[in-house]
Amino acid sequence: MAAALGDPVRHALESVLDAVRDRTDGDVASYIPELATVEPEQLGAALASTHGVVHEAGDVESEFTIQSVSKPFVFALAVDALGLDEVRRHVDLEPSGEPFNAISLDEASGRPRNPMINAGAIVMTSLMRGDSADEKFAVVRAGLERFAGHDLLVDEEVFSSEASTGDRNRALAYLTRSAGTLGSSAEVATTAYFRQCSLTVNARDLAIMAATLATGGVNPVTDERVISEDAARWTTAVMTSCGMYDESGDWMVRVGLPAKSGVGGGIAAVQPGQFGIGTFSPRLDARGNSVRGVATLELLSQRHGLHMLQHHGASLSPIASLSREGADGGGDTVAVLRGEILFAEAEEIMTRLGPLVGDHGCLVLDFTAVTRVAAGSRKIFSALPETVGRLDDGRARVEVRDPDGVLAGPSAG
Amino acid sequence: MAAALGDPVRHALESVLDAVRDRTDGDVASYIPELATVEPEQLGAALASTHGVVHEAGDVESEFTIQSVSKPFVFALAVDALGLDEVRRHVDLEPSGEPFNAISLDEASGRPRNPMINAGAIVMTSLMRGDSADEKFAVVRAGLERFAGHDLLVDEEVFSSEASTGDRNRALAYLTRSAGTLGSSAEVATTAYFRQCSLTVNARDLAIMAATLATGGVNPVTDERVISEDAARWTTAVMTSCGMYDESGDWMVRVGLPAKSGVGGGIAAVQPGQFGIGTFSPRLDARGNSVRGVATLELLSQRHGLHMLQHHGASLSPIASLSREGADGGGDTVAVLRGEILFAEAEEIMTRLGPLVGDHGCLVLDFTAVTRVAAGSRKIFSALPETVGRLDDGRARVEVRDPDGVLAGPSAG
Amino acid sequence: MAAALGDPVRHALESVLDAVRDRTDGDVASYIPELATVEPEQLGAALASTHGVVHEAGDVESEFTIQSVSKPFVFALAVDALGLDEVRRHVDLEPSGEPFNAISLDEASGRPRNPMINAGAIVMTSLMRGDSADEKFAVVRAGLERFAGHDLLVDEEVFSSEASTGDRNRALAYLTRSAGTLGSSAEVATTAYFRQCSLTVNARDLAIMAATLATGGVNPVTDERVISEDAARWTTAVMTSCGMYDESGDWMVRVGLPAKSGVGGGIAAVQPGQFGIGTFSPRLDARGNSVRGVATLELLSQRHGLHMLQHHGASLSPIASLSREGADGGGDTVAVLRGEILFAEAEEIMTRLGPLVGDHGCLVLDFTAVTRVAAGSRKIFSALPETVGRLDDGRARVEVRDPDGVLAGPSAG
Amino acid sequence: MAAALGDPVRHALESVLDAVRDRTDGDVASYIPELATVEPEQLGAALASTHGVVHEAGDVESEFTIQSVSKPFVFALAVDALGLDEVRRHVDLEPSGEPFNAISLDEASGRPRNPMINAGAIVMTSLMRGDSADEKFAVVRAGLERFAGHDLLVDEEVFSSEASTGDRNRALAYLTRSAGTLGSSAEVATTAYFRQCSLTVNARDLAIMAATLATGGVNPVTDERVISEDAARWTTAVMTSCGMYDESGDWMVRVGLPAKSGVGGGIAAVQPGQFGIGTFSPRLDARGNSVRGVATLELLSQRHGLHMLQHHGASLSPIASLSREGADGGGDTVAVLRGEILFAEAEEIMTRLGPLVGDHGCLVLDFTAVTRVAAGSRKIFSALPETVGRLDDGRARVEVRDPDGVLAGPSAG
Repeated sequence: MAAALGDPVRHALESVLDAVRDRTDGDVASYIPELATVEPEQLGAALASTHGVVHEAGDVESEFTIQSVSKPFVFALAVDALGLDEVRRHVDLEPSGEPFNAISLDEASGRPRNPMINAGAIVMTSLMRGDSADEKFAVVRAGLERFAGHDLLVDEEVFSSEASTGDRNRALAYLTRSAGTLGSSAEVATTAYFRQCSLTVNARDLAIMAATLATGGVNPVTDERVISEDAARWTTAVMTSCGMYDESGDWMVRVGLPAKSGVGGGIAAVQPGQFGIGTFSPRLDARGNSVRGVATLELLSQRHGLHMLQHHGASLSPIASLSREGADGGGDTVAVLRGEILFAEAEEIMTRLGPLVGDHGCLVLDFTAVTRVAAGSRKIFSALPETVGRLDDGRARVEVRDPDGVLAGPSAG
Repeated sequence: MAAALGDPVRHALESVLDAVRDRTDGDVASYIPELATVEPEQLGAALASTHGVVHEAGDVESEFTIQSVSKPFVFALAVDALGLDEVRRHVDLEPSGEPFNAISLDEASGRPRNPMINAGAIVMTSLMRGDSADEKFAVVRAGLERFAGHDLLVDEEVFSSEASTGDRNRALAYLTRSAGTLGSSAEVATTAYFRQCSLTVNARDLAIMAATLATGGVNPVTDERVISEDAARWTTAVMTSCGMYDESGDWMVRVGLPAKSGVGGGIAAVQPGQFGIGTFSPRLDARGNSVRGVATLELLSQRHGLHMLQHHGASLSPIASLSREGADGGGDTVAVLRGEILFAEAEEIMTRLGPLVGDHGCLVLDFTAVTRVAAGSRKIFSALPETVGRLDDGRARVEVRDPDGVLAGPSAG
Repeated sequence: MAAALGDPVRHALESVLDAVRDRTDGDVASYIPELATVEPEQLGAALASTHGVVHEAGDVESEFTIQSVSKPFVFALAVDALGLDEVRRHVDLEPSGEPFNAISLDEASGRPRNPMINAGAIVMTSLMRGDSADEKFAVVRAGLERFAGHDLLVDEEVFSSEASTGDRNRALAYLTRSAGTLGSSAEVATTAYFRQCSLTVNARDLAIMAATLATGGVNPVTDERVISEDAARWTTAVMTSCGMYDESGDWMVRVGLPAKSGVGGGIAAVQPGQFGIGTFSPRLDARGNSVRGVATLELLSQRHGLHMLQHHGASLSPIASLSREGADGGGDTVAVLRGEILFAEAEEIMTRLGPLVGDHGCLVLDFTAVTRVAAGSRKIFSALPETVGRLDDGRARVEVRDPDGVLAGPSAG
Repeated sequence: MAAALGDPVRHALESVLDAVRDRTDGDVASYIPELATVEPEQLGAALASTHGVVHEAGDVESEFTIQSVSKPFVFALAVDALGLDEVRRHVDLEPSGEPFNAISLDEASGRPRNPMINAGAIVMTSLMRGDSADEKFAVVRAGLERFAGHDLLVDEEVFSSEASTGDRNRALAYLTRSAGTLGSSAEVATTAYFRQCSLTVNARDLAIMAATLATGGVNPVTDERVISEDAARWTTAVMTSCGMYDESGDWMVRVGLPAKSGVGGGIAAVQPGQFGIGTFSPRLDARGNSVRGVATLELLSQRHGLHMLQHHGASLSPIASLSREGADGGGDTVAVLRGEILFAEAEEIMTRLGPLVGDHGCLVLDFTAVTRVAAGSRKIFSALPETVGRLDDGRARVEVRDPDGVLAGPSAG
């Protein structure tokens, strides 16, 4: 009877939505006539976990145009396809302290300040494979569909509006073109970019897209690898620094979830390794961020300690127990390890247990209850057990018990 | 025979130092004559874990002036004492995209752009308790000593140099004073600030200071709580956004360890929840960051996956096993949980096990092998076990086994 | 035998050209391939007086593209056609302290900083009458031809180059378009602007164009009124503030001739009321100003005191003589006035002679030797002679002798 | 009976004051408490001609602090004493497009943008002779007294206020000090500067000070040379470019009188070669300019054509008459010249009369009615009469009649 227990995550989402629902400040985007027709009271949030379950609350099925929320994902496609070095020839990765439509081009290099402002985002789109706007947009769309896990449609009316009112974006394209950083003609880049911004999504889609970054590049619902782990990390890092325009620093202090908003009313937020969240509410604040989307993420972060830099209190030691085996004093020492072993846990284990390696009995490291040994931390154990030599009775001084093969890495998990 | 196993963390540090030792680019700081006399070949690194062990390599005992590395720690003291809201009345928290000595004052509010640039740092010092420069400096010094775990001395010659060449900093003080954001007279603020910058530390100290942020505010060597968890998180967040001046975005992409450098040659870097690193090497790049310190942190991060946003591969499920107890089919279901339970793990547990709550037999959640349940995640379990009712035989439908009391929080850990 | 006397102005020009001819620094413009093919050694200067004589020295017949020298003249056409208020809705008139291709748009109003930078110049062109680029360009061309006094041709190869490399200018057009200050589509504005910049002129043309501003809007060679006096004054004022980009202030200190340069190598300079100068020499300094053109104007200004703010030494009094007429003491007083009577001279005349108006004899003001009474100064004399009453013998107390009618204004001149 | 004629210039001033008297917008300066106590309704204007007569209207005797109106005069003292090159090592001369208290320091050179903003003005004061603030201020005061023609007093209460609220100015001093462009300690410079700003003047004083620039450096009332002609021209040039802060370009278009305002309510304006105007009215607009002072100057300029670039209509020819002397056809040709002969007039004379030099009879140039030959224009006549040779009868081909010696320059005037 699951009903009895319910879905506490959905309850958490619903409770937060209830708390922010009364906020009526802000205005729906009006710079494009099409956007102004949206029903302003809509409010929805979804959380997609890295194991592929999506929890939903409110208007999670309402479709809206993705707009700037597309930026990190297209950046991700660019670095995945071209590598970080090549992409950095075309765009810088520094916060600009400026609004989304800032010009913000480095005078010397001609590179937009970062790929989260329009100038940088248009350059990213221009780097997509293909010559024509149609080809480049096809690559963007296919990529975003893999992030979302299903087909995405273009809102043709919004696209027409974008195209007919997009002179500032055209200006940015021509500027980057003249500075040598645009990867196509200005017309090709802006046409593809306008279509990209006009793709429709819902809060559920954004949650899954964000969760795909949280997993290190694998869509947790479709299990498809969309981008490399490196590309996912770089993308999340750029969202951390630059995702919320000129209040990115404040966002990192208050909320601590790398995020990106769009004037369509959506926000996608990532808790690396944990989950993705998508929110939707059309009314925007002066910076173009969804008022209730921001409030939802802020409250969720506070209530549930979701800040990326949250200290979770002292952890139990990764050494669950330490005991002598065998009836007599000369028996082996068994250290039962547990939990997630990142660098610090590896360090603690080796620091505390290293001195126990000796001539009388074997040190047994039992990894059975360990959930993961992070790749970079395995090197800390790399001396084990071979290099520490053998006991007089021929047995290794150290013995590793690792039935799930966590020491060998995730492929064994 | 610990010698047999050695200290793999120290080995890791030494290996990285060896890799960067040949870098001879950069110049020692010369803007103050005293700084130019340092032995430029010095190179050291230390890593302090959150359980209080410090691993050292190279010149970790060499003393140098802390300079700008003091900034995050004094900001931490300020938010700890005054709260975030009050501090934010005096300083903004946004990356400036500008050099350390940028003027960067918001014209409307008069607030420096962030507390990691000189203008903001001087304002932080001015907010320390006390009226005179001596009193304010005494508060700074006492605070930094608690971060470092021992007494810190002022290099009086560097102080004299700072004071006699510090006109730009005086200008920043007068600017903030005239803008209403400085908390004292300009002379008091700069005198205290010059003394603060002239405090001497070594790489070991910086590692422990950084580790104190990593633990959420408790010095892991002295076990003294220096600042609150909130203050530690806010400070790390500001380091994330603004710590490396105008290359903070790039640093977050490449290294991913919130950090702060000083022209004395030191860098302090934090891996939240894990450890702190201190490095020392006097030659600076054009931005004033230690050339080999930066290289050390970058290489350490790459080799050992220390990037804050590193994806550590798929974790084993927090549900270690799921089995029926009792010989007959009507027995209880036992779910053995394990590892660190943050929000996502709590979500997975409740999502998978919720449907198993029913009328026939009890669902036993065994937290024995769980190392930690994050505070915010406990709410996900808050319905357990009372609200799910009782079986026909009067037993609770859900039973929690938690010998270490991890569900109740760290005080029980 | 004029040959015996020669042309001292031409000699002055030649002497200056000889002095600057050896300067070989700078480079011909290369941003357009077509411009790079020019013969770099060319050097010419012409001075056109407001009475229509042109003095020439060096390569005054060499044709080159007008480029940015067109900007003040198209601004003049715009204010002449639309009035200052309407034009100011589209462009600000403040020096920008920035290079010619600076973006420099006021964020609030969307107005380019001034009409001498590209953004403002493109907006001016967009305000020309007509819908298509062809129509707008036809208006520009016809206007510039009236300034020059003859037909001007487009260098089609330079135009093609401009059009194919003009992405930054297109960007500026789209920016102003999106800001609401462009008077046409971006494509129309830039096409017309590129053609405008590709019109060919020579140094003689520039001298006459500048002289047309110096006369207050009448081409001194063709005697055609091209623009109104107001438009000429406003244009010269904008050249004074903004003509030499980010060294306009320095130019005003050192040279003091409102001027405008172009990357084609030309400069047009105005001495209001006196003359216009055109220079041509292709090699440009880092700011895009002709190296030897600048040197020519600077040296001419110094040698001949042509600085607009030059103090010309104490003038003789406008009262040439003051004498009693008639044999007996009761005769009239005759004041012989002379020279140009601007405000200060009018003030001096009235201040000195006013007390002489009395009951015994008439005060005769003899304007015969006066060359001009400035319009605004006539008001100072407006009380004369009617309001001062009559003598006992019925004669007016003041009598004005003005055979050329200078008091009534230039139409009588 | 002068009363019958009256003083038309005073009438002109009074008429303008009447027209602007009803303007009640703006506020008296309040950043210094002392300034806020001024009687806001005061309104006065004075015009001092270059021949030393001062016309007054309204509250011309009311004393107020000179504040920023001192800036051009102290700049004048600096360039007079040190030369333009040395002064330019300390300050740039470019308009900043920024408010009076802008920081506006060139990052590379450390030079304030111009001497009319506070930073540049403080640097100018710091360059005064002497070591202490008292010595430097004594030089400033003595210089300003020579400009004004009498002793000036310090308003000690305003000085105290300035000194106690002047942190932003102190900041600017320290900034320039750290950048190497301040000529003294920051404390010395600001103390002297605060006293400078606290000197009291009235509208009459400002008119005479401005007139001293108009004459090329000679106080027209005391006949004392205060600064060199070069210094006067440079100063007026800087006022032209930078005098009215961020609306200098607009001011040049609308008013065309180089001017400088102060928050004490005063404005000094110069018509080079003609006169100086001083106005006083305490209420300021948002930029800190006296509302009614600006309106007074704008209306005066419009009504009386005082714009520096005003075209005064076609002048009569400098050749008043051209006739044959002698009964028979072979007689001499007499050209009666007249008025002010600047470059263009010299050019016209030589261009028209040059061809008349021949073998039959002498060309007589009669300069008797000429009021002035500008120094730079004399070179145009330099070939006369020697180089044109002699007639068969031994007489010179050209004869100059110049009883007042205007061709030899002002010393003969």
